[in-house]
Amino acid sequence: WRCLKAKVVDITMNAKKLVKDDPRRVIHSLKVGLALTLVSIIYYYQPLYKSFEVSGIWAVMTVVVVFEFSVGATLGKGINRGVATLLAGALAIGAHHLADLTGQGEPILLGFFVFLQAAISTFMRFFPKIKARYDYGLLIFILTFSFVSVSGFRVDEIIELAHKRVLTILIGGAMCVIISIVVFPVWAGEELHNLIALNMEKLGNFLEGFGDEYFQVPGESKEKKTFLEGYKAVLNSKTSEESLANFAVWEPAHGRFKFRHPWKQYLKIGSLIRECAYRIESLNGCLIADMQGSSEIKSKIREACTSVSKDCGKALKELALAIRTMSQRSSTDSHIKNAKFGAKRLTTLLKSGIWEHIDLLQVIPPVTVASILIDVVNCIEKIAELENE
Amino acid sequence: WRCLKAKVVDITMNAKKLVKDDPRRVIHSLKVGLALTLVSIIYYYQPLYKSFEVSGIWAVMTVVVVFEFSVGATLGKGINRGVATLLAGALAIGAHHLADLTGQGEPILLGFFVFLQAAISTFMRFFPKIKARYDYGLLIFILTFSFVSVSGFRVDEIIELAHKRVLTILIGGAMCVIISIVVFPVWAGEELHNLIALNMEKLGNFLEGFGDEYFQVPGESKEKKTFLEGYKAVLNSKTSEESLANFAVWEPAHGRFKFRHPWKQYLKIGSLIRECAYRIESLNGCLIADMQGSSEIKSKIREACTSVSKDCGKALKELALAIRTMSQRSSTDSHIKNAKFGAKRLTTLLKSGIWEHIDLLQVIPPVTVASILIDVVNCIEKIAELENE
Repeated sequence: WRCLKAKVVDITMNAKKLVKDDPRRVIHSLKVGLALTLVSIIYYYQPLYKSFEVSGIWAVMTVVVVFEFSVGATLGKGINRGVATLLAGALAIGAHHLADLTGQGEPILLGFFVFLQAAISTFMRFFPKIKARYDYGLLIFILTFSFVSVSGFRVDEIIELAHKRVLTILIGGAMCVIISIVVFPVWAGEELHNLIALNMEKLGNFLEGFGDEYFQVPGESKEKKTFLEGYKAVLNSKTSEESLANFAVWEPAHGRFKFRHPWKQYLKIGSLIRECAYRIESLNGCLIADMQGSSEIKSKIREACTSVSKDCGKALKELALAIRTMSQRSSTDSHIKNAKFGAKRLTTLLKSGIWEHIDLLQVIPPVTVASILIDVVNCIEKIAELENE
Repeated sequence: WRCLKAKVVDITMNAKKLVKDDPRRVIHSLKVGLALTLVSIIYYYQPLYKSFEVSGIWAVMTVVVVFEFSVGATLGKGINRGVATLLAGALAIGAHHLADLTGQGEPILLGFFVFLQAAISTFMRFFPKIKARYDYGLLIFILTFSFVSVSGFRVDEIIELAHKRVLTILIGGAMCVIISIVVFPVWAGEELHNLIALNMEKLGNFLEGFGDEYFQVPGESKEKKTFLEGYKAVLNSKTSEESLANFAVWEPAHGRFKFRHPWKQYLKIGSLIRECAYRIESLNGCLIADMQGSSEIKSKIREACTSVSKDCGKALKELALAIRTMSQRSSTDSHIKNAKFGAKRLTTLLKSGIWEHIDLLQVIPPVTVASILIDVVNCIEKIAELENE
């Protein structure tokens, strides 16, 4: 009993966290329920039922399968489903007529057609470009072709069947699209936009805090701070960025985004951000390393490094803000300039022979930090350039 | 016309590459075609058709939707679909009886039930653990519940409908599972196993070649070599590793893998490998950097660095081989020992004052390379330790 109680409490806590992280999840759940209930009216309402009969169930199925979290994903799936159903239906009817001509061999020929299209369509799903955008369409193509050509063998009113199915799917798909656009829409494009800005901010947080953390007096508290962990999510965000970009292309103009907003640019910025995150992973490695190097050297470059790191962090945050507000950058350039200037100062500092006669092994760790920071400045410059385009 | 021809040639080339990269893709396509054709026999064959009638189409649908590339994914989807259909069917019949009692309010109460379960199930799909393993099951749960409870409002033989649907889904699911296991099976577990080994080998390739590439005489050809690019795939392999591990838990014992093989260990090794790959990303950064540093220093540490790098590469490849053959490691330890010894030698070399009076800025690049290499040795040691468990 206690075990059960603990489990229930655990699940409730998790659910609360899910809602707190993104309250739109609850809204999405309600939207799905709403769409499904509306569509079942086709079944309940007598006059509508008469015209669709059992086919009405396809509208229910369409809603369940097509309704996704973002508008782009829903639209993409809906369009895929609609077009694939039409194409496959037409082809299947053609195949059926062809098979009819042969008379006795009809089932064999139809079986062969089903086999052929299933094998070809399944293979096509392996093409990366097709997989990214039309995977669901191909699935529905196989489904509809098999469905229509196989059941066509029995049902004589094959065209009417296809016609009803397409109509109910259109109703179901339209219901999903309308509800997902009208009721608190979640735009994949905006999600992508925000994700990119958020990732920049995470790196910015790390860089702003890094200097103080690395150069603190050894005796001070060494507890891990959460802002130093945020960058880790950036390392593995490629998959979600790509899928969001794929959804976004389906979306119509909304808010500040035009219909053919350059979503691919976001992927480019995203990969530059990831490159920057790899550098930060190295910095984090220096932070937690056992061998911290000479504290004398550290104190010598402390001020220069901390200021470069802070400027980098600020520059990233300003770039992020510029993305969020979609405005021309104003003070960003000054932060980048500061960072570049700081990097130069750091380079000069490294050149000046302040380390003569110190064990090189003691010099390496802080100097590595300095050179990674200089590298980060280059990274950020590249990001700023791309953002200008 | 020319444009079309170019496109056709392009597609053919792509298709050939897909087949060459993994010939099992063709086999998989043929398997799907086979399963679909076999299942449509239910429709064609008179006695079978009599007992299932239109419900036979559910078997076709199940095959199309459930058949996946690996056995684990197919089994997971099949089990999800079967269990979810049973549960949702039972619940929907219960809801239907309950609604029946109220008499006039039946459609309203049923509509409310549909809304409620759709909203709750959709929200449950946001839990990360549920999403990873039971996402498809919840989708089918919503589908079946809506389907049975809505059509139950019309069709009086609701239990028979549910019974037929479950039976046909079992037939379709069983067909998928049997064909995917019997005909050239693709095991997700084995894929994961091989992916981990392959990733190690990619890093090994880089490290084996890195020394010669970095320390080559500047005049020599600077063309990019492909073995230096392989590690990049490792940086972003987290998603595929996780999904393979999720599929693998569904798989029964096969070949060298027992039923409850510790698939989670692979994820741990995978993330260590990725950490190592981040270091290699830094090394690659040094390789392509403009500032290459003093060639005098380079020549001084050339031999030590090259040998550490080679030993690291060999050690990784031996670790990969040990995973592939699932054997106790034999010569690996000697490679790791060599690498550790080389790292110590390199450390001593860095300590000895061979750099006095050289511009520090010229010293940094090669020294950075050396210290990353020492770090890589630590990484590889950790991987070896984990592999021993």
